[in-house]
Amino acid sequence: MLGKFSYCNPTRLYFGEGALSALALELPKYGKRVLLVYGGGSIKRNGIYDQVVASLKACGKEVFEDGGVMPNPTVEKLYEGVRRARDCQADLILAVGGGSVCDYAKAVSISVFCDEDPWEKYFIRFEDAVQKTLPVGCVLTMVGTGSEMNGGSVITNHAQKLKIGHVFGDRVFPKFSVLDPTFTYSLPKHQMVSGCFDIMSHIMEQYFSGEDDNTSDYIAEGLMRSLVHSSVAAVADPHDYEARSNIMWTATWALNTLIAMGKTTDWEVHMLGQAIGAHTDATHGMTLSAVSLPYYRHIMSYGLPKFKRFAIAVWGVDAAGKSDRQVAEEGLAAMERWMKSIGLVMHTSELGVSEDMLDGLVESTLVMDGGYKVLTKDEIREIFRQSL
Amino acid sequence: MLGKFSYCNPTRLYFGEGALSALALELPKYGKRVLLVYGGGSIKRNGIYDQVVASLKACGKEVFEDGGVMPNPTVEKLYEGVRRARDCQADLILAVGGGSVCDYAKAVSISVFCDEDPWEKYFIRFEDAVQKTLPVGCVLTMVGTGSEMNGGSVITNHAQKLKIGHVFGDRVFPKFSVLDPTFTYSLPKHQMVSGCFDIMSHIMEQYFSGEDDNTSDYIAEGLMRSLVHSSVAAVADPHDYEARSNIMWTATWALNTLIAMGKTTDWEVHMLGQAIGAHTDATHGMTLSAVSLPYYRHIMSYGLPKFKRFAIAVWGVDAAGKSDRQVAEEGLAAMERWMKSIGLVMHTSELGVSEDMLDGLVESTLVMDGGYKVLTKDEIREIFRQSL
Repeated sequence: MLGKFSYCNPTRLYFGEGALSALALELPKYGKRVLLVYGGGSIKRNGIYDQVVASLKACGKEVFEDGGVMPNPTVEKLYEGVRRARDCQADLILAVGGGSVCDYAKAVSISVFCDEDPWEKYFIRFEDAVQKTLPVGCVLTMVGTGSEMNGGSVITNHAQKLKIGHVFGDRVFPKFSVLDPTFTYSLPKHQMVSGCFDIMSHIMEQYFSGEDDNTSDYIAEGLMRSLVHSSVAAVADPHDYEARSNIMWTATWALNTLIAMGKTTDWEVHMLGQAIGAHTDATHGMTLSAVSLPYYRHIMSYGLPKFKRFAIAVWGVDAAGKSDRQVAEEGLAAMERWMKSIGLVMHTSELGVSEDMLDGLVESTLVMDGGYKVLTKDEIREIFRQSL
Repeated sequence: MLGKFSYCNPTRLYFGEGALSALALELPKYGKRVLLVYGGGSIKRNGIYDQVVASLKACGKEVFEDGGVMPNPTVEKLYEGVRRARDCQADLILAVGGGSVCDYAKAVSISVFCDEDPWEKYFIRFEDAVQKTLPVGCVLTMVGTGSEMNGGSVITNHAQKLKIGHVFGDRVFPKFSVLDPTFTYSLPKHQMVSGCFDIMSHIMEQYFSGEDDNTSDYIAEGLMRSLVHSSVAAVADPHDYEARSNIMWTATWALNTLIAMGKTTDWEVHMLGQAIGAHTDATHGMTLSAVSLPYYRHIMSYGLPKFKRFAIAVWGVDAAGKSDRQVAEEGLAAMERWMKSIGLVMHTSELGVSEDMLDGLVESTLVMDGGYKVLTKDEIREIFRQSL
C-alpha cells in the first residue's frame, strides 16, 4: 500500500554524450564566484577538468579550487571545504566527480552558513538543513550513488570510527547535474562494477521492506532488470554506450527518492557496509557486495513472499512445482552468479577485514528497523563472520 | 539506447488520504485572487468542492468560479475561461477535477497573456508557450491522464472536427497537485476502467517504439504490471485503497515525461482515439481501448521483438518452445482477456461509430511517425473498420 507522502524533485538533468555544453545554460543563473570541487585529479588526466574550466571562463566566472576530495570524504575535509567556501564567498559550488565529490559538495553547501559544528548538527543529531544553503551543480564522472539528484550526503569520521549519511530535503538537491555516460568510460573495471552494486543495493534496500503491493516495488523491479542486463554488457565492452547510459540513468532513479515513495525501506546493508568503510576505507560498493548475500540469506525466511517475487520478477526463476523457499533461494543464487560474473568482491577479507576486527565492526554498525528482521548485535556479528 | 535529453519535473505532489490539507501549505505562496476551475458539478455532490472552498477562504483568498468544464474541453470553453481569468485578474488557477479540468486549466494558463488566438497558436501551429503563464494547482478527482504532473493539454474543436493535444515545457507544469486516492472512490466503474486504459495506453505508446535496450522501457514494464494487477483489484472492490493508490501513482508516472526519456514514442493510438472523440464525444479511455487491439495486431509483425518482450515481461507468457510470433500473439491475447475482464469497450460501434463515419474518421486522424509502422490512410481505414 502506498502511504501518505509528498514528492518533489527539482533537479534539472542534462543527459547524454556532449551534455557538458549545458553548463552554458546553467552557469549564467548564478553569481560570479564558483568553488570548483573535485577528487584526486583524474579529471585533470582525462581532460574533463579543462573542459569545465573553459566553460566557467567562457561564462565569466571567477574560479576557486577545492580538490583532493577523497573517496570517503572526511569530517576534516568538510571543515576545510567550509573554510574555502567562506573565504572565497562562493556563489555556486560546482562538483566534478563521483558520488563522494557530490556528497561532499552538498555537505559544504549546508555547512557554510551553519554557526556550529556541522558534523554534530547534521550527522550526529540528524537535524535538517534550516540555514541558507549554497547552490550546488554536479558534473558526474562516476555512477552509483545517485547523489546527482538527491539530498543525501555521507561523511566519515575516522577518529570516531563512524561513516554516516544524512538525507536532506529538496532544498539541498543539486540545482542541476550533467550526466555524460562517456565520462565513465575511463573508470577502472573495479570501480565501475562497484558502482553497479551500489546501485543494486540502493534498489534492494528500498525493495526488501514492507509486505504491501505497491507501484514503487514494480518500478524497482524494472530498474533492477535493466541494471543486471546493462552491467553484464558494460563489463564485456566498457565503451558500450547503451549499457553505460542505462547504468547511469538507473543509478539516478535508484536513489532520487522515487522508489521509496509511500513505503518503508531497510538500509541495513548500507549500515553494515559503512561500518566496514569506517574501519578499512574500502571501496563503498564492494563493502556492500561482500555483506549482501550473508545478510539477505539471513533475513530471507522473515520476508519469504518478497524474496519469491524478487526471484521471479528480477531473475526469471520458474516457480512451477517448487516451494516458496526453493524459489527464493534460486533467486539469491542467480544474484550470486551475476555478482561473481561481473567481478564483485564476495568476501570482506579481500577488503582488509580480519576476525579480530569483528567486535569493532559490530560496534560501528547502526541498526535499522525497516527490514524484515531487526538485527541483534549477535546477528550482526554472525553476518560479518560469514562475510569474511 | 538512451538518447540525449534534459529532464526536469518541478511539480510538487501531495499524495494520500487527507492530502488536501496541503492546500494550507501551498495557497499562501500565491496572490489573493484564485480562479476555481471544475467540471460538471460532481465535486459539489461529493463534498470536495466545500472542502476546497473552505481551504481557500481559510487562506484569505478571493474566489472566482469557472465551472462546467466538459470531458473534452472545447475551444469555445477555452475562450470563455481566458475571459474569466482576465476579468478577475487571477493570481492562481486551481483545477479541481480529472484530466480534462487540469488540461483546460493549463490551456487557460498559457492563453491569458496570449494576444492572438490560442487555438491557432498552440494547437494548430504547435508553438511553445513563450508568454507569461498563470500558475496552476490541481486537486485530482479522477485518474488517467497524468495531467497533474505534466505540461500536456488537449482541446477539442468540434467545428473543425479536431481534438488536438500539445505538450508544453515545464513552465506550464502544475506548481502543485493534490492526489487523494479516496477522491476516486465515487467514480462510476465505467469512468474508472476508462481511466485505467488511458494509463495503459500512455505507457504502451511510449513503450512500443524503438528497438534499443533502455531503462525507460524497463520502468514502463514495471508500471504496466502494477496497473494490470491493481485495476483488477479495484474493479473487484472500488474502495480498495491499495489498488486505488497504485492506479493513481501509476497514472502520474505513466505520463510525466519519465518513461519517454531518451527514446522515441509512437502516440498513434491516441490519434485514432482522438479522431473518434472529435466525432462522437465518447469517453477518451474507451476510444483508446476500442482501437488498440486492431492497431497493435496490425503493427505487431513490424516490431516483433518488442511484442515478444511485452508478452514475457508484462504478461508472464512462457516462451519455451514457441515461435516469437506465437509468444507475441499470446501477449496480446492476455491483454485482451484483461481488457474484457475489467469491462472495457472493445468495439467503436458501442461508442456511436458507424460504417458511414469511417471516411470522416480517417480524415481527422493525424499520422505519427514513431511507431513500428507509419500508417497509410488505407491502413487507418482498415483499423477503424476492424474496430467497429
